[in-house]
Amino acid sequence: MDKHEITMDKIVSLSKRRGFVFQSSEIYGGQAGAWDYGPLGIELKKNIQNAWWKEMTRMHNNIVGLDAAIFMHPKVWEASGHIANFSDPLVDCKDCKMRFRSDTMDQEALKERKCPNCGGELTEPRAFNLMFKTHIGPAEDSSSELYLRPETAQGIYVNYKNVIQSNRMKIPFGIAQVGKAFRNEIVTKNFIFRTCEFEQMEMQFFVKPGEDEKYFEYWREQRWNFYKKYGVRMDKMRWYHHEKLAHYAKDAYDIEYEFPMGYSELEGVHNRTDFDLTQHTKFSGKDMRYIDQDNGNEKYIPYIIETSAGLTRNVLMFLCDAYEEQNLTQEGGKEDYRTVLHFHPSIAPVTVAVLPLMKKDGLAEMALDIQNELKEDFVTSYDQGGAIGKRYRRQDEVGTPFCVTVDYDSKEDKTVTLRFRDSMEQIRLPISELSTRIHAEIKKYQRV
Amino acid sequence: MDKHEITMDKIVSLSKRRGFVFQSSEIYGGQAGAWDYGPLGIELKKNIQNAWWKEMTRMHNNIVGLDAAIFMHPKVWEASGHIANFSDPLVDCKDCKMRFRSDTMDQEALKERKCPNCGGELTEPRAFNLMFKTHIGPAEDSSSELYLRPETAQGIYVNYKNVIQSNRMKIPFGIAQVGKAFRNEIVTKNFIFRTCEFEQMEMQFFVKPGEDEKYFEYWREQRWNFYKKYGVRMDKMRWYHHEKLAHYAKDAYDIEYEFPMGYSELEGVHNRTDFDLTQHTKFSGKDMRYIDQDNGNEKYIPYIIETSAGLTRNVLMFLCDAYEEQNLTQEGGKEDYRTVLHFHPSIAPVTVAVLPLMKKDGLAEMALDIQNELKEDFVTSYDQGGAIGKRYRRQDEVGTPFCVTVDYDSKEDKTVTLRFRDSMEQIRLPISELSTRIHAEIKKYQRV
Repeated sequence: MDKHEITMDKIVSLSKRRGFVFQSSEIYGGQAGAWDYGPLGIELKKNIQNAWWKEMTRMHNNIVGLDAAIFMHPKVWEASGHIANFSDPLVDCKDCKMRFRSDTMDQEALKERKCPNCGGELTEPRAFNLMFKTHIGPAEDSSSELYLRPETAQGIYVNYKNVIQSNRMKIPFGIAQVGKAFRNEIVTKNFIFRTCEFEQMEMQFFVKPGEDEKYFEYWREQRWNFYKKYGVRMDKMRWYHHEKLAHYAKDAYDIEYEFPMGYSELEGVHNRTDFDLTQHTKFSGKDMRYIDQDNGNEKYIPYIIETSAGLTRNVLMFLCDAYEEQNLTQEGGKEDYRTVLHFHPSIAPVTVAVLPLMKKDGLAEMALDIQNELKEDFVTSYDQGGAIGKRYRRQDEVGTPFCVTVDYDSKEDKTVTLRFRDSMEQIRLPISELSTRIHAEIKKYQRV
Repeated sequence: MDKHEITMDKIVSLSKRRGFVFQSSEIYGGQAGAWDYGPLGIELKKNIQNAWWKEMTRMHNNIVGLDAAIFMHPKVWEASGHIANFSDPLVDCKDCKMRFRSDTMDQEALKERKCPNCGGELTEPRAFNLMFKTHIGPAEDSSSELYLRPETAQGIYVNYKNVIQSNRMKIPFGIAQVGKAFRNEIVTKNFIFRTCEFEQMEMQFFVKPGEDEKYFEYWREQRWNFYKKYGVRMDKMRWYHHEKLAHYAKDAYDIEYEFPMGYSELEGVHNRTDFDLTQHTKFSGKDMRYIDQDNGNEKYIPYIIETSAGLTRNVLMFLCDAYEEQNLTQEGGKEDYRTVLHFHPSIAPVTVAVLPLMKKDGLAEMALDIQNELKEDFVTSYDQGGAIGKRYRRQDEVGTPFCVTVDYDSKEDKTVTLRFRDSMEQIRLPISELSTRIHAEIKKYQRV
């Protein structure tokens, strides 16, 4: 393998070194299945979330947002089927006490009931529910049981009538939500790809039965184009068509991305039929039918097309997709590679870095003044330490698309250098035109 | 009491009716201590969060963001003192089984050990820890115990060295974070004011011991001015100086707001000294001292000034503060009040509503085209139903600062009416100048 190819180790290392992602509670040896987003990671995550939110709510008159609580009434999870079915089959070794998922372990060993680790005897498989359970109120009995939601979708379903009434929505319409969900995964792996605590970006689209297949295709196309719009490499993406469907689904596709560990799910587009709303009708006793006032008050339970993307997975995807170790070696020269993150400017954690050529002679003050002007409009950073070439490389490594350099000429003629991350091209322009020019450069990306 | 005065009932009712806040899991009778944010509520909450984030990170070169996981290593809560001390004292009635907080109940009844409800015998008070507990992994024993964080601050403390290293921070510097925290409150009350699941906006500022008092004053002023900047009525705000200090604090002030239920805490500014970092040094065995490279590598444990605001409390505050039933009755005319939310335009859930005078004659299409143009820059809404006066009132009630009306003249001369929420003034301007004008109007507010 080419030593300049991307690996998960490189992404993990860069993430820690530059402040994208830290191990949770690292000073205590780490907390399994949880990660903390550092200064650049939280900006990256926010930008992805904001891009999705804008695309899914602001740009559509028939989609609104929602933010349901993590704590929901336990009946919700009875209705959804999570209490009965949301489990992994586990076996334990009676000798070494190791634990395995019987559906993914060595099937020969399982048949012979022999531990793959020590050869000891295995227990019968038992269902292990993946929901985290807690208790509310002072008594720890079954009446006070509460679950951390294992998915955000149910918060949308139980509120759909509230949303219709308060916002006068008419079918077809959608409800979008970004939020945390929790799963007691036995095996967490691949950095932030599979974790116990994660974030989802979901939009549930309510349609008339019979129109579901049309909207299913519509939303597949829309979601694919979202990634295209934000510059994701299309040759790294593919569709996976589910052959074995979940009990609630009529059809299901995943958008997969080629991560360093191989193609893995980034987002699912599912036709969930009327399953969830029918279940909530049964369990709540409330009429969950939509009343079509434009159509003789016809009543029906809508079908639901779900687009469900992992936000934290998207962070990993955008990091991997942006990553390049670019060969800049000149003929006959010393080997020279730069690490660069080619983020779309709307996704990049920092938009503009302002760099004085020197700290002295008033250049630092001038650079800080320019930065102050840009702060209202952009996320900026300021760096005054070390050779200018090194500082450009530092900004490349975290994906800052624009660098502004203040030098001695700046003092004379009020111009600065604007340097572009991808082309490394530099132009000279008046300070007064800086903000407008950067806005224009960002717009160029959006037209791609 | 004047029937047009604000009450909590009015806020709760408006919140449900217009889609700011719904009861969580309402179709199942509701989940105590949890609330769901509807289409307007999530936009309002996001705007407050974004205003805070911009103010606290983007505008300061020495403050960066962080987003730590809700799941943290249990040792964190030993070090912080939460396992030992974060509890309410409870008593139970042996007869009617009711439960009371012994520190806030009728002290006479407590002394006589008589239930205030049925007169039955009360148990001895016992400490009830307010942290929600769950288990990670398949075994439910003490080794797998995990807590939902009861505050976000500790996520900042355990990461402070990671942040210094990855972002080359120098004291004084701050780390800002917005996130959920969970407390098993026995009494949740006052709508979204006190809930089991809530969101905090915290900034922890690390300073050299001896400089703590100076920065304490600095941040008190900054945080007060934040509310001023976003138009909060200053006569509703006051400082509360803590006389009884928490074990970690050297000084503590709260910003209180006069809610309908009286003055209550909105935000705290605390001098937490070196308590937390000293504790984490003890419990983790890691050296948590800062190394001052500009000062002969002097080593010390920094003092921490904390600014800790409730995000969900801020949502309630901005709703209450914006609310007015304004008397528009004309002399000799019928009584006429409008309900209006005077949100700052950066806080308002919707910035611009576009309204065609009629649906027919191409006005609706023209209005939708104008809305589409505005969508890139603003959160917009579109409303074509009913008399125009009623539609203005509908927008006033949710605090939309600008309405654009498309009428028959618009078709002729490409002009529209721009109507201002607070003054109800209307001006006529070319469609081509709309976006620029709205931007300029928003800037006027920011200068106040």
